Amino acid sequence: MSSGEFFSSRWIDRPAQVTELAGGLPLGFRAAGVACGIKPSGNPDLGMIVSSAAETTSAARFTRSGVLAAPVLMTMERCRLDGLRAVVANSGNANAATGGRGLDDAAKTQGSGAIVAGVREDAVAVASTGVIGVPMPMESITRGIAAASGELSAEGDVAFAEAIRTTDAFAKRATLEVTLPSGTVRLSAQAKGAGMISPGFATLLCFVQTDAALSPQTCDLLLGVTVKRSFERISVDGQLSTNDTVILQSSGESGVRVEPETEDELRFGEALDALLRQLAISIVRDGEGARRVGRVVVSGGDAAAVEAAARAVANSPLVKTALHGGDPNWGRIAQAVGMALPGTAPLSLDVAIEGMQVCARGARAPHDGEALSQLVARDEVEYVIGLPGEGAETEVFFSDLGHDYVSINAEYTT
Amino acid sequence: MSSGEFFSSRWIDRPAQVTELAGGLPLGFRAAGVACGIKPSGNPDLGMIVSSAAETTSAARFTRSGVLAAPVLMTMERCRLDGLRAVVANSGNANAATGGRGLDDAAKTQGSGAIVAGVREDAVAVASTGVIGVPMPMESITRGIAAASGELSAEGDVAFAEAIRTTDAFAKRATLEVTLPSGTVRLSAQAKGAGMISPGFATLLCFVQTDAALSPQTCDLLLGVTVKRSFERISVDGQLSTNDTVILQSSGESGVRVEPETEDELRFGEALDALLRQLAISIVRDGEGARRVGRVVVSGGDAAAVEAAARAVANSPLVKTALHGGDPNWGRIAQAVGMALPGTAPLSLDVAIEGMQVCARGARAPHDGEALSQLVARDEVEYVIGLPGEGAETEVFFSDLGHDYVSINAEYTT
Repeated sequence: MSSGEFFSSRWIDRPAQVTELAGGLPLGFRAAGVACGIKPSGNPDLGMIVSSAAETTSAARFTRSGVLAAPVLMTMERCRLDGLRAVVANSGNANAATGGRGLDDAAKTQGSGAIVAGVREDAVAVASTGVIGVPMPMESITRGIAAASGELSAEGDVAFAEAIRTTDAFAKRATLEVTLPSGTVRLSAQAKGAGMISPGFATLLCFVQTDAALSPQTCDLLLGVTVKRSFERISVDGQLSTNDTVILQSSGESGVRVEPETEDELRFGEALDALLRQLAISIVRDGEGARRVGRVVVSGGDAAAVEAAARAVANSPLVKTALHGGDPNWGRIAQAVGMALPGTAPLSLDVAIEGMQVCARGARAPHDGEALSQLVARDEVEYVIGLPGEGAETEVFFSDLGHDYVSINAEYTT
Repeated sequence: MSSGEFFSSRWIDRPAQVTELAGGLPLGFRAAGVACGIKPSGNPDLGMIVSSAAETTSAARFTRSGVLAAPVLMTMERCRLDGLRAVVANSGNANAATGGRGLDDAAKTQGSGAIVAGVREDAVAVASTGVIGVPMPMESITRGIAAASGELSAEGDVAFAEAIRTTDAFAKRATLEVTLPSGTVRLSAQAKGAGMISPGFATLLCFVQTDAALSPQTCDLLLGVTVKRSFERISVDGQLSTNDTVILQSSGESGVRVEPETEDELRFGEALDALLRQLAISIVRDGEGARRVGRVVVSGGDAAAVEAAARAVANSPLVKTALHGGDPNWGRIAQAVGMALPGTAPLSLDVAIEGMQVCARGARAPHDGEALSQLVARDEVEYVIGLPGEGAETEVFFSDLGHDYVSINAEYTT
């Protein structure tokens, strides 16, 4: 995506303090992406990010699956997560369900990354995405790390974003300039993810860099809050990955320090929030075979009820196929909510689609079916659901379910 | 299905005391199915079942959705569920999310059914399946009930089964002769369901008749136990319907009484169990666009863990598309189990597909990939999953996810 095209969803406003740049990394960071032979296609499949700043701070979030990929286990257990200097990420192989050998391979990858980056091993995070249950081709990895180390550059974010793609139809990245009261900083991110997306703590892979100076605590606080509002609010197929990893690194090289509870922190947080929310929606838009993005907003009831109802709608294959077909089948919304809230019948449910009320207090509301059909054929479709009572509200962004999802996933490993 | 073809799954054995018949209802029952104009296609869309025996006993199970269709609410609240004499069922319109008018329409349907069947209103169950949120065309219903009442016959099970189809590719019914120690009885059933299948208490629609004499308590006990082992163990798309209804009626007209805790009850229960389990698998086999049936068996852990793991596998679109493609992607099984059991990493997971071990203690087990590819291309594929520990075990039957599911569901209402 080039300058001015990143904030493409009507649901995300570009904050006034943010300017989009065409690319490039914040001061202190270099990155690269190369093809090292993990993917049979010969496409780029290994990327590195390195910060030259000794004082780099960081924070990370991971999947909470009971089946953790080796790189996730290894990074969680062997890294200083608040001081990550480098990332080695590969696509084409998830290094998941690979046992002791998988852990050894992840550790070797970390070690090689540390050598070429010139940093301690516990400052190197490793992340993988791709097929589960296949041993990592370590010769390719070693060759890839050597090649990537020779190509690290401040403009390497573009190649890095390419190297972490699997079934992604397009690379997902952005570089933003953020004007804070204390000065101007840069913020960039590269993400991948098109399927197996229904994150608990993170999405598949997302790497965020800034040259603002953040304390480790501020890194952790801001990443935690913004991941909750972005990657935890999306679903392509309701499937939690074994490999989800999100890392924020702060080099401090801009010289602009973001102190807790200041206007700087507020403005920086807004920028990070908009960045991650738009990236999350881009992942949904790139949901395998997706044609449209849906947003379901549920209010009323309590926190558990709105969460269950929103997830049930977002993950319903009946709702998703209707969205794909541009079909205003609101009965499937009612069905999904009913499934999420057993024992509540008769449920006084309100449903509006693109602002048009179709269901009031559990029954059909008179509405113009023709006009509704036009509204649901757009690129983004919004469903607003009201449950009895007040108090809670949540949202989930989700993709439709189309033929390409079936084609992609019926033929992925073999 | 003609004689000898009903028990088609390798997972269900025909009990020795059971003989398949080509069709026909048990003594005391008549049924009919007609086209009354609910479906634009002009296909059959209204069916009736009537028992002539004043002493008919019955039991019923319903969906536990929070959004209950009007016929479900009306039948649950206004019927004597242990003495149902007649059923009026329609396809083409679910009469769900239709508010007060929907309840009135269901009550009118019940009233018309009672008049033509010559029974009390509270002995008439009403069931509907089809589109949600559209008012019932009551002139069609009234016309249909009148037409059906003129066509009731002991061989009406065939037409009835046709009349309750929606997206079903084939009608689902069976007539069995069951030899009990005290004499021979008949047992028949008609079911529908191809999508929106992940029942809590029941499946979409299933009506079961017998001329054995069962007390209301025995009816309820046997139906409860067998529904738990059949319709509660299947998933086409993980979607609980607003309309699920299962009814068992016993006319007693064979003169053979099935007393509690007798060999008769045991043998009758076995026959009912096999009947409902095979019907459940037939519903999965007819899952919208389905090509293959999967069976996932999970053992170990505790009851909650095996249930969560089995459902996660059965409902995973990644597992289902792999099954569709005949793709031995066992990594998606591991991913789904991990998602179901957060916080258990590293999980010592065993997975066998069609008897071939592919994952042992969480890591890939050496196996012949070519041979595995052949095994997963069959009509029925079995996944056996072992969790650490002992004690619990469960199974779920599920369909694959293919292009036809998308086509059917992207274009269903409009």
